[in-house]
Amino acid sequence: MRAYDLIRKKRDGGQLTPEELQYLVWGATTGGVADEQLAAFLMAVFFRGMDLRTELPAWLNAMLHSGRVLDLSAIPGRKVDKHSTGGVGDKISLALAPLVAVCGVRVPMVSGRSLGHTGGTLDKLESIPGFSVDLSIARFAELVNRLGVCLIGQTAEIAPADRKLYALRDATATIESVPLIASSILSKKLAAGIDALVLDVKVGRGAFMKTLEEARLLARTMVDLCKAVGRDCVALLTDMDAPLGSAVGNAVEVREAIDVLHGQGPSDVRELTLRLGVEMLLAGEAPGVGHDPLLARMRVETALADGGAAKRFAQLVEAQGGDPHCVEDPSRLPQPKAKREVAGGARRGADRSRRRRAGRGPRTQGGRSRSRRGHHPPQTPGRRGARRRRAGRAARGQRLAARRGRGAPARRGDHRRHAAEAQAAGAGAHRLEGVRIPACASSTASSARAWATPSARASSSTSW
Amino acid sequence: MRAYDLIRKKRDGGQLTPEELQYLVWGATTGGVADEQLAAFLMAVFFRGMDLRTELPAWLNAMLHSGRVLDLSAIPGRKVDKHSTGGVGDKISLALAPLVAVCGVRVPMVSGRSLGHTGGTLDKLESIPGFSVDLSIARFAELVNRLGVCLIGQTAEIAPADRKLYALRDATATIESVPLIASSILSKKLAAGIDALVLDVKVGRGAFMKTLEEARLLARTMVDLCKAVGRDCVALLTDMDAPLGSAVGNAVEVREAIDVLHGQGPSDVRELTLRLGVEMLLAGEAPGVGHDPLLARMRVETALADGGAAKRFAQLVEAQGGDPHCVEDPSRLPQPKAKREVAGGARRGADRSRRRRAGRGPRTQGGRSRSRRGHHPPQTPGRRGARRRRAGRAARGQRLAARRGRGAPARRGDHRRHAAEAQAAGAGAHRLEGVRIPACASSTASSARAWATPSARASSSTSW
Repeated sequence: MRAYDLIRKKRDGGQLTPEELQYLVWGATTGGVADEQLAAFLMAVFFRGMDLRTELPAWLNAMLHSGRVLDLSAIPGRKVDKHSTGGVGDKISLALAPLVAVCGVRVPMVSGRSLGHTGGTLDKLESIPGFSVDLSIARFAELVNRLGVCLIGQTAEIAPADRKLYALRDATATIESVPLIASSILSKKLAAGIDALVLDVKVGRGAFMKTLEEARLLARTMVDLCKAVGRDCVALLTDMDAPLGSAVGNAVEVREAIDVLHGQGPSDVRELTLRLGVEMLLAGEAPGVGHDPLLARMRVETALADGGAAKRFAQLVEAQGGDPHCVEDPSRLPQPKAKREVAGGARRGADRSRRRRAGRGPRTQGGRSRSRRGHHPPQTPGRRGARRRRAGRAARGQRLAARRGRGAPARRGDHRRHAAEAQAAGAGAHRLEGVRIPACASSTASSARAWATPSARASSSTSW
Repeated sequence: MRAYDLIRKKRDGGQLTPEELQYLVWGATTGGVADEQLAAFLMAVFFRGMDLRTELPAWLNAMLHSGRVLDLSAIPGRKVDKHSTGGVGDKISLALAPLVAVCGVRVPMVSGRSLGHTGGTLDKLESIPGFSVDLSIARFAELVNRLGVCLIGQTAEIAPADRKLYALRDATATIESVPLIASSILSKKLAAGIDALVLDVKVGRGAFMKTLEEARLLARTMVDLCKAVGRDCVALLTDMDAPLGSAVGNAVEVREAIDVLHGQGPSDVRELTLRLGVEMLLAGEAPGVGHDPLLARMRVETALADGGAAKRFAQLVEAQGGDPHCVEDPSRLPQPKAKREVAGGARRGADRSRRRRAGRGPRTQGGRSRSRRGHHPPQTPGRRGARRRRAGRAARGQRLAARRGRGAPARRGDHRRHAAEAQAAGAGAHRLEGVRIPACASSTASSARAWATPSARASSSTSW
């Protein structure tokens, strides 16, 4: 088998056999296929795609088995991870992982570094003094068992083919390919031995997927691909027209996540954390929750309100070598050297593009050329933490916060009423029908419409 | 400027500026841009193309000036080279270069190695014992001045960017891209300081261009591109449905070329050599020929018949370190270790494909993987010399030979009559209108029709 022939076949629109795809993945893992040939293949895939039924499951399986596949079956309960396709200011995982763990679902989370203009969870975590994401597999499994959660980076042992291909894609402008994104994400996530995955597919100007159609295609591909390899998956499509929360930059984003764990923080970050938490509890069949979304919602809100999630995060930070006192006293986190405030109220288009530039801050320093292999140096202080003030639009965020009784234990009736209202308004976070979880009430066409109206941005864009 | 952004721009169908194209060529020359990035860019060009008016001249100029550009203006007369896009059994250059030189046009010929399933002129030349294609530029210029001809390989000094990109294309299945082929060929050829170029664009099953449309596009691109950078160019589209002549393999092809120089050889090889010779004499404004194709035809036929061309070839071989006695006594050339005869008269389709496999012989031995950088080891004996015997169709070739009085000095009336007959029959070698030379009588549509009829294969397929 020659890489040349396989590149050519894909270039000309042919379908590769599982053996051919396996050969390329083997070549990426071992160096048996040259970088320039892999790059050309990736660009050919960018233009030609991969067949969802025949090629993509084989490609994913080859990537998944290019390294160690963890077996966490000795740990009781379902293991669930969450993945976001990456947005500016997305610090959701930091609060979400301990929140879900404290609700009784195991979260063996394998996270990534920054990609394109978006930050990576690992870079953010490493801004906590002493925090290590390079744990052994044994230690990882131990923490998942004991604390219900552990956050590590993609090690050399997990999906090494993806490590290689991801670096090549980052250097060769072949990131934005649906089959490549889907298989890359899933190869890392599924190798950690999870039973189900909750996807947060970002859509909008600050995301890789600019339109709802693109995002839906990616979500649909990943949900179907997971099913094809025997795992559960559900996807939410969420707004990334503006950064999540009010901070962009590693350390300042950790601080914002800690605020959420304390029952505070920006309402959009809080709401998305809760929604993804609900999905993870359902996917993980959390004790006492079963398949009831309202019970799940109450469970996650309570875990924030009673301090359980924050406590679990402190335990996690300590177990991974970090300073746990940062959780109670975020002033111990590195302070940004420079802050740039991005004012609201200006013309919408100009404002959005300024925020995308804000997201690009950490990338510009450290830069593409240095990080071509995908290993970004830890950028401790988020130098361009962008804070937005929007007098005019803040009102709605405050109203939502007040209605939910932020910080106080939630009552069941509140959730039911709020869920109904959110659905009527078009539901800010667009939930895509998954394998296990049925479609939301609104049809594809109507969610596309809802997406385009301001009311659809209820949850994730209240401060937009 | 970052290679990433330029790959992305091309990937998304944007037009690159001259500075951006120059940056990539600089990167290929110096290693300043990584191989995988160049490969991804080349694949993006495969899918997106390059604009003929804005991008391609800038790209060509950058390639051309990536290394030394020879100045042969001190040598009197016009300098003309010929290029074939590569076919199976194409040994035309070997006889053509001394033939045109002896007629008074300077031929500073820079040749290539084998590409894909086709052989390269350099590999063939190197099967002559002692023959060297690695001469200094000074020696090259001296021979062009003294003998009117010199045949060298693409040195490290000439268009190093193309050397790099050609190797990458050969490894990454990005050979078959019209703008990349056109700019690659022209960067090498124009760097040798020529005034005009005659192109032999092969079309058919044995060629890179499978259809007349593809071949016409390449020819048109090259003729226009030459014009854009201030050189003359004319293209012939010629048949490569079957190998040229009856030998495929380095040494056996040299032998066949020597036969042509002695006024013998297969009629298709002889006829194509003469036709290309006519074009080169016209492009080179050969003394005593001017712009008259019939005078040019008479001049080249005479040079074959009177032994002048063969003598010049012997001088050339000697000057380049080879054994000149091979020209008089071809048994001194290496003998093939194995011969496989491919019988004619079988079903046309099956037969053709067997001949393409024959062409692939030298490639299979030595192989893609070893030759990924484009440097094939010299394959002295053509191990799979394919000889075709075609009792049924030989008749026409013999008739043509007889009519021309092969070996005897030609009379002017014969040429005029033959030219008129060839034109009436559809003209086997399809001449494309060039910059300097007006279109042939038949329109585009009618040549396409003529191409499809057996009578159109008069010259290059008489023994087919």
